[in-house]
Amino acid sequence: MPVVLASESSAATQKWLKLIQQHFPELDAHIFDSADNEKPKEVRAAIVWKPQSELFERYPQLNLIFNMGAGVDAILRQSGIPPTARIIRLEDGGLANPMIEYVVHYLSGITRNFAVYEQNRAQRLWQSAEQTPVDRLTVGVMGLGVIGARIAQALSALDYPVQGWSRSPKELPGVTCFHGESQFADFLGSSQILINVLPLTDETRDILNRDSLQRLPQGAVLMNIGRGEHVVESDLIELLDSGHLSRAVLDVTRQEPLPVDHAFWSHPAITLTPHISGPTNHYVALGQIRDKLQDALQGKPITGEVKRDAGY
Amino acid sequence: MPVVLASESSAATQKWLKLIQQHFPELDAHIFDSADNEKPKEVRAAIVWKPQSELFERYPQLNLIFNMGAGVDAILRQSGIPPTARIIRLEDGGLANPMIEYVVHYLSGITRNFAVYEQNRAQRLWQSAEQTPVDRLTVGVMGLGVIGARIAQALSALDYPVQGWSRSPKELPGVTCFHGESQFADFLGSSQILINVLPLTDETRDILNRDSLQRLPQGAVLMNIGRGEHVVESDLIELLDSGHLSRAVLDVTRQEPLPVDHAFWSHPAITLTPHISGPTNHYVALGQIRDKLQDALQGKPITGEVKRDAGY
Ligand SMILES: NC(=O)c1ccc[n+]([C@@H]2O[C@H](COP(=O)([O-])OP(=O)(O)OC[C@H]3O[C@@H](n4cnc5c(N)ncnc54)[C@H](OP(=O)(O)O)[C@@H]3O)[C@@H](O)[C@H]2O)c1
Ligand SMILES: NC(=O)c1ccc[n+]([C@@H]2O[C@H](COP(=O)([O-])OP(=O)(O)OC[C@H]3O[C@@H](n4cnc5c(N)ncnc54)[C@H](OP(=O)(O)O)[C@@H]3O)[C@@H](O)[C@H]2O)c1
Repeated sequence: MPVVLASESSAATQKWLKLIQQHFPELDAHIFDSADNEKPKEVRAAIVWKPQSELFERYPQLNLIFNMGAGVDAILRQSGIPPTARIIRLEDGGLANPMIEYVVHYLSGITRNFAVYEQNRAQRLWQSAEQTPVDRLTVGVMGLGVIGARIAQALSALDYPVQGWSRSPKELPGVTCFHGESQFADFLGSSQILINVLPLTDETRDILNRDSLQRLPQGAVLMNIGRGEHVVESDLIELLDSGHLSRAVLDVTRQEPLPVDHAFWSHPAITLTPHISGPTNHYVALGQIRDKLQDALQGKPITGEVKRDAGY
Repeated sequence: MPVVLASESSAATQKWLKLIQQHFPELDAHIFDSADNEKPKEVRAAIVWKPQSELFERYPQLNLIFNMGAGVDAILRQSGIPPTARIIRLEDGGLANPMIEYVVHYLSGITRNFAVYEQNRAQRLWQSAEQTPVDRLTVGVMGLGVIGARIAQALSALDYPVQGWSRSPKELPGVTCFHGESQFADFLGSSQILINVLPLTDETRDILNRDSLQRLPQGAVLMNIGRGEHVVESDLIELLDSGHLSRAVLDVTRQEPLPVDHAFWSHPAITLTPHISGPTNHYVALGQIRDKLQDALQGKPITGEVKRDAGY
């Protein structure tokens, strides 16, 4: 099963190659070299993350493009991908659990005021801080796909009242499900904690703006682990400054790395992390890709194929 | 079903009474008043947390003593409890989930270095910190009872390799189970993160001492959410200072509140919280007690009865 590896980072492709040689030798992998003019005709599959655009010129016959990430906004923006090529994204790929951990870490930090204990230490003060009982806080999860559904169910298992929002109707045990534009306002109106884990598409770009954020209950918290472009950043700052929102935990920003002069850096109501909430486990991811490639080559159906017109 | 309520804190008994009147009126509850000399003969059940010792003189016929907590070390130290009285402890009582949340918060804080991002902000530095993949860290849970088993399974669901240790042999899906003194050293030797959630008994007092802590792998982390008296505090400090242990997260200490001159306050490798990891949900707890009292009065078997000779 010959595959070509291509990424903006040569350290990344080196790492994939090593893992493949060690664990998945049935993948006959080589790293794309833009200087090399050979066009190995038989290569029909690629494993990519923000690949060089020359890849698709050099390998026009590629028809199985495995995206080394759950989000496909970057690859869909890329020019030169043959219109008939199938793009397959990671489904979980070992990152849903770290994302659950991230959410529980920052959410419990807020609801249970853990940071206060660090402050109390300076005064050697042994005193419990206010803890909001979980059943008083409804968590709304935007996006109930592979990752969002896992997050929603993990929080529900911890006794949080959880609701979610997706494009099509869903049923998830323990989760009140909303869908579509018509139910968006109702969903927002009762989400004291809003966790965004939508994919970035034409429909979802700028979805967290003044209008939608205002619909959240007074004092709500926004956690964005989707994409920076979901948020209109000046609107978010306005609503934090007015006190309508009490905090934003942002793992992603419109421009990454966040520019040094950006207002987020010094905003007291913003917690910032540098896009680390869901680190891909490359071993898990490559195993998943190997399995799907095997199935696809045998003509079997595979999941995780990107609906290119829907954008995710 | 007449019950008497008694606690060291009158605010607590007032709160219980209010909840009972609102949600469990079938409990005919009154608060113990040490000044009142009446001895209502028909009262056979009590709900207590560190009650006044006069309670047992005044109500010698008490034979169902519901402890408003999972730990029974305090009630078992109390004098005057009729030797034939049954002591029933809380099983979970709504605190296992908050304890899971506590563990995930502090554990992920360590393995994923979340605190670094707060420091990086001062320099407006967008840079991922080292994250230890969960599968490289074995978590050992001491105590696989109602709470420990839940914690072990929650961490296993997050992909941590998890092992546990109890008095009697156990089988828990996804958890490597050790038991008894003879397997203690092996259990410790492979626990990079040690979470203590044992009950305090004559057998477990001082169990985390120089000898046992030294058996942990170099750089191990101790998290104590059991009882302060499980830890020989000077031994812990010695092992943190020598670097054998890299961190201790302590929710409990031998003396609470922790004395202002205690070395823990200023130790850089210690994270301290004031016994808040598992806040009892009094509504859940009282519902559980109501059900058990009903069953006990009908002669049905109930769980959670304390083995007074074993001390838990
Ligand atoms: N910060 C990080 O480190 C990180 C890591 C990984 C992923 N991510 C982000 O997380 C996103 C989600 O990943 P996933 O694997 O869970 O994706 P997924 O399985 O494709 O799920 C996407 C979900 O969003 C819903 N959705 C899409 N468009 C919508 C719209 N216009 N209105 C309402 N709901 C809409 C979908 O609804 P239907 O169910 O009806 O289709 C689905 O429930 C990725 O695209 C990526 O941007 C971030
Ligand atoms: N920090 C807080 O806020 C907080 C809150 C709640 C509880 N706690 C503490 O957590 C403790 C555990 O609660 P729980 O409800 O899980 O208790 P539990 O259901 O009685 O479980 C106790 C566990 O410890 C094991 N154990 C007892 N003695 C042992 C020994 N000598 N050697 C090895 N294992 C031993 C038991 O083994 P077997 O299974 O073989 O019996 C059992 O697995 C409580 O006693 C309390 O001290 C702390």
